[in-house]
Amino acid sequence: MNSKQKLLVTFPNPNPERDYTIIHTAPEFTSVCPVTGQPDFATIILEYIPEKICVELKSYKFYLQSFRNDGIYFEAVTNRILDDLVKVCKPRYMKITAKFNTRGGISSEIIAEQMRKKLKKKFV
Amino acid sequence: MNSKQKLLVTFPNPNPERDYTIIHTAPEFTSVCPVTGQPDFATIILEYIPEKICVELKSYKFYLQSFRNDGIYFEAVTNRILDDLVKVCKPRYMKITAKFNTRGGISSEIIAEQMRKKLKKKFV
Amino acid sequence: MNSKQKLLVTFPNPNPERDYTIIHTAPEFTSVCPVTGQPDFATIILEYIPEKICVELKSYKFYLQSFRNDGIYFEAVTNRILDDLVKVCKPRYMKITAKFNTRGGISSEIIAEQMRKKLKKKFV
Amino acid sequence: MNSKQKLLVTFPNPNPERDYTIIHTAPEFTSVCPVTGQPDFATIILEYIPEKICVELKSYKFYLQSFRNDGIYFEAVTNRILDDLVKVCKPRYMKITAKFNTRGGISSEIIAEQMRKKLKKKFV
Amino acid sequence: MNSKQKLLVTFPNPNPERDYTIIHTAPEFTSVCPVTGQPDFATIILEYIPEKICVELKSYKFYLQSFRNDGIYFEAVTNRILDDLVKVCKPRYMKITAKFNTRGGISSEIIAEQMRKKLKKKFV
Amino acid sequence: MNSKQKLLVTFPNPNPERDYTIIHTAPEFTSVCPVTGQPDFATIILEYIPEKICVELKSYKFYLQSFRNDGIYFEAVTNRILDDLVKVCKPRYMKITAKFNTRGGISSEIIAEQMRKKLKKKFV
Amino acid sequence: MNSKQKLLVTFPNPNPERDYTIIHTAPEFTSVCPVTGQPDFATIILEYIPEKICVELKSYKFYLQSFRNDGIYFEAVTNRILDDLVKVCKPRYMKITAKFNTRGGISSEIIAEQMRKKLKKKFV
Amino acid sequence: MNSKQKLLVTFPNPNPERDYTIIHTAPEFTSVCPVTGQPDFATIILEYIPEKICVELKSYKFYLQSFRNDGIYFEAVTNRILDDLVKVCKPRYMKITAKFNTRGGISSEIIAEQMRKKLKKKFV
Amino acid sequence: MNSKQKLLVTFPNPNPERDYTIIHTAPEFTSVCPVTGQPDFATIILEYIPEKICVELKSYKFYLQSFRNDGIYFEAVTNRILDDLVKVCKPRYMKITAKFNTRGGISSEIIAEQMRKKLKKKFV
Amino acid sequence: MNSKQKLLVTFPNPNPERDYTIIHTAPEFTSVCPVTGQPDFATIILEYIPEKICVELKSYKFYLQSFRNDGIYFEAVTNRILDDLVKVCKPRYMKITAKFNTRGGISSEIIAEQMRKKLKKKFV
Repeated sequence: MNSKQKLLVTFPNPNPERDYTIIHTAPEFTSVCPVTGQPDFATIILEYIPEKICVELKSYKFYLQSFRNDGIYFEAVTNRILDDLVKVCKPRYMKITAKFNTRGGISSEIIAEQMRKKLKKKFV
Repeated sequence: MNSKQKLLVTFPNPNPERDYTIIHTAPEFTSVCPVTGQPDFATIILEYIPEKICVELKSYKFYLQSFRNDGIYFEAVTNRILDDLVKVCKPRYMKITAKFNTRGGISSEIIAEQMRKKLKKKFV
Repeated sequence: MNSKQKLLVTFPNPNPERDYTIIHTAPEFTSVCPVTGQPDFATIILEYIPEKICVELKSYKFYLQSFRNDGIYFEAVTNRILDDLVKVCKPRYMKITAKFNTRGGISSEIIAEQMRKKLKKKFV
Repeated sequence: MNSKQKLLVTFPNPNPERDYTIIHTAPEFTSVCPVTGQPDFATIILEYIPEKICVELKSYKFYLQSFRNDGIYFEAVTNRILDDLVKVCKPRYMKITAKFNTRGGISSEIIAEQMRKKLKKKFV
Repeated sequence: MNSKQKLLVTFPNPNPERDYTIIHTAPEFTSVCPVTGQPDFATIILEYIPEKICVELKSYKFYLQSFRNDGIYFEAVTNRILDDLVKVCKPRYMKITAKFNTRGGISSEIIAEQMRKKLKKKFV
Repeated sequence: MNSKQKLLVTFPNPNPERDYTIIHTAPEFTSVCPVTGQPDFATIILEYIPEKICVELKSYKFYLQSFRNDGIYFEAVTNRILDDLVKVCKPRYMKITAKFNTRGGISSEIIAEQMRKKLKKKFV
Repeated sequence: MNSKQKLLVTFPNPNPERDYTIIHTAPEFTSVCPVTGQPDFATIILEYIPEKICVELKSYKFYLQSFRNDGIYFEAVTNRILDDLVKVCKPRYMKITAKFNTRGGISSEIIAEQMRKKLKKKFV
Repeated sequence: MNSKQKLLVTFPNPNPERDYTIIHTAPEFTSVCPVTGQPDFATIILEYIPEKICVELKSYKFYLQSFRNDGIYFEAVTNRILDDLVKVCKPRYMKITAKFNTRGGISSEIIAEQMRKKLKKKFV
Repeated sequence: MNSKQKLLVTFPNPNPERDYTIIHTAPEFTSVCPVTGQPDFATIILEYIPEKICVELKSYKFYLQSFRNDGIYFEAVTNRILDDLVKVCKPRYMKITAKFNTRGGISSEIIAEQMRKKLKKKFV
Repeated sequence: MNSKQKLLVTFPNPNPERDYTIIHTAPEFTSVCPVTGQPDFATIILEYIPEKICVELKSYKFYLQSFRNDGIYFEAVTNRILDDLVKVCKPRYMKITAKFNTRGGISSEIIAEQMRKKLKKKFV
């Protein structure tokens, strides 16, 4: 596990017998543009169906804060957060939606998702 | 039946011949964080297609109020409410959506659902 | 036909060769709670694909007003309105959505629908 | 072509090789109720996938204005607009949504659509 | 490549192993009506699933600004932007939505999309 | 006191030493048009600075419900509610705002207020 | 009285002893541009404090409809409505706010008011 | 000081030379109705101009939570919070706005304020 | 008169006997940043009480469009528009509000107004 | 001047003969809580009437960014920003409104303003 993944504390899924969805919406994400050094701001929406492991909310907050002074692109940081969380939680399904504030009159949204295994039952 | 389930009063579904949907939205749910002892607040949305039994609205309110001073996690309480109502109502279909207020700059939503038997007719 | 159904005036569908949708939204529905005698308030949304018959708007308003001082439950009144209109209009498809105001901190929505026959063409 | 259809000016679809969608939203439609003589008001939403012909925007405005003092019912005017435009444009797909203002405390929406031929490619 | 396409700077997709979506929303697009010479205003929404190439945000802004004094129709400019970006980025999927401001009381929206090859995995 | 005023239960103002404001917003008011017999619907906003007496909320609800089947004009019912409450509560200041639903395409609002005596201190 | 003023039916102010406010909001006003012949659309807000006379709502609707095919400028029609109503109602205070739909990318609002005599009491 | 006031921790106003305003909005207030035992919910807005003392935010949260299982009326709790905070902070100006959720179809708002001494400069 | 002022066509105020307000809201203003050459976008709100002269709407649109390719600062363009219009219209009162789109994460609004002479009557 | 004030670049007010208002709204302010080390987030609204000097927008952005890793309280940072800007710009009037995100279920807003000298003319 890399140093950021180690920030993520987990706990056992209390209801692994059921496919249910957990959504955490974090509107206070900030990192730094690797080219200009200017801060970027985004809302990060994590949506997942847990298998055996859930991510603890406070540690997830610290994980997101660890990007505060990192220089990283929109596309890379979105996929990075998804990779780290999939690695640690091994969920049945996970999606990251990152909505970045306007830069140069244009706002951006990056959406990445991963399906790890067949869901138990149909899930609309 | 456990003590919370006993709070739930029911009445016969007046139209069991039809698959129809009932949605009750309760924005005043509150329980207590089992770690910090701080109060949590959520909107609980119950959506179901009844079989033979409907849950009476006032008793459902008292059921939700019974969590007021209980210490319980987000994921657990959502699944618990679904389990209790499925046990008592034996519905054709039921879903609980719990939208929790912001904690540490992050808001959370837990969605759990259960299909008990084939619906009579297609239902969009 | 029962006395309420008789309030409903109809006219011939001017375009029976096409499956098209008619939606009437009535935010001023009120009836009375059969237990407490207190008034209930709802928005009734009628959506249907007509066959040979359309319901005339003014008579539909009078039909809804006829519940003003009736004591009737949420679930029952929604299915009742659907049954009356299906009886009178014999539509290809019909749905009633009833959104009731907050009672005891909880708002309720009841959705019932009925498909009478195969639609002519696909309809998204 | 009838007199209203003659108001519609067209131009060749600049990109017939692709199935793409054009939506024109006109919130200033008004006609007259054939029974009471009172004015009706609606927003007309035209959505279509052109084949060889697009409707010119200004002439479409004049076409809609031609109903200003006509007495015509909600259901009839919606299907009439669809028929006229299908006749003139011969589109791959066309839909008219007419949202009428509140009358007698009830607002109405009529939705009619027509598919003329297989679309070239799938279109979500 | 034409002169406008040359304005578009690209960079390698950092995560080509995954089908993920990038959305850039540009509410400050303006061009000129070829008939009246009057300025038009639109919001351009670019949504795509990259293959090997992503479009750089600042160069995309300059690309959109290059239309500022061009005379071009709604339908043509939307398809033109899609063609230019597909040519340069060769994406797995791309869609352009152009929402034009009200003209003559009518607002317009043009939606064009193109699928270049099978997506790696299902993508809801 | 007339029969409607007798419905209003009061309790002593717990803080008469201070000029403070109480606002009750009741969106479920309905009465009947004295000419057409058609139901009218309104939101009644009561705002007052109590002297020695406050109006009890539940009795105020019953008071408003007593108009359910009364035939009364917009202007008259607004002033009537103000007169009844001033008579019973003898407040330092009171205002009734009645917002009536659309009739004939026009919505109406009636605002009446009464100052009974000098306020204790300035009140912005 | 001119022919439009004659359309306005009045009734005696039921509460002339009090300065209270009546607001009628009519979002379906339409007239014709005297230069282009194109229809204009506006929301007309009438606000007044009656003296001895109130304007009857249905006749006010007919009065506004009488402009449907008149050619008249924004500024002129707003002052004209105010003049006609002041002439007929002789109110203590009256204001007309006319909010016109976008023309050439610009929306317009005209506000005219008239105070006829000292109000009885202060009015915030 | 009473037991609730002792919960309030304070710190010295860092800028006593200036009249400036502090607003804390707490949407998660809950207490209990003294008659029915049912929970009440409100948003409490504290606005004040500090003299020498500011209230510490976390202790203010604990202070508000201390009402969780207290039975107290709307009017009383609003004035009680104002009295406690004025006693502890001795501000130049303070206002409490309490917006209570709907009960019996009626929502309530109580607003109490207190000016303790002349403000240093004019304050719009 | 300078060249921009000459674009402004006027017409006589039809109601100079009354102080009334005219508001024109133009959300499609664009000019160019004099430093970076990048386009700026703003909504320009013109509010005035005319004396003898009103500005004609179409010519005002052309006047605003004349800035399309001018390099000019936020503060300067706002005052410039006010100066030009005051020069041409000689109004009793005039205000320009310019709301500029976000640049560098910051949006700006400039508000300038001028009173030319005493208003005839009080104007709230 | 302190090190933060030196970040602020200024330019001469182009229209010192008029009292006009400049508002800059910056929704991306972030600093750090001096007690917990956790990041805080706020929208900073700067409103001022310039005398001889205006603050340049880009340098103001850098000034706000300089707080990114500073530990400072809500009340202190608001007054600090006002003091720095008044020192550098010597405006006729200046106000800082800082709206902080929810912490512990409570959102906060701090408003500080300063009048430096008599305004030239009345300013509503």
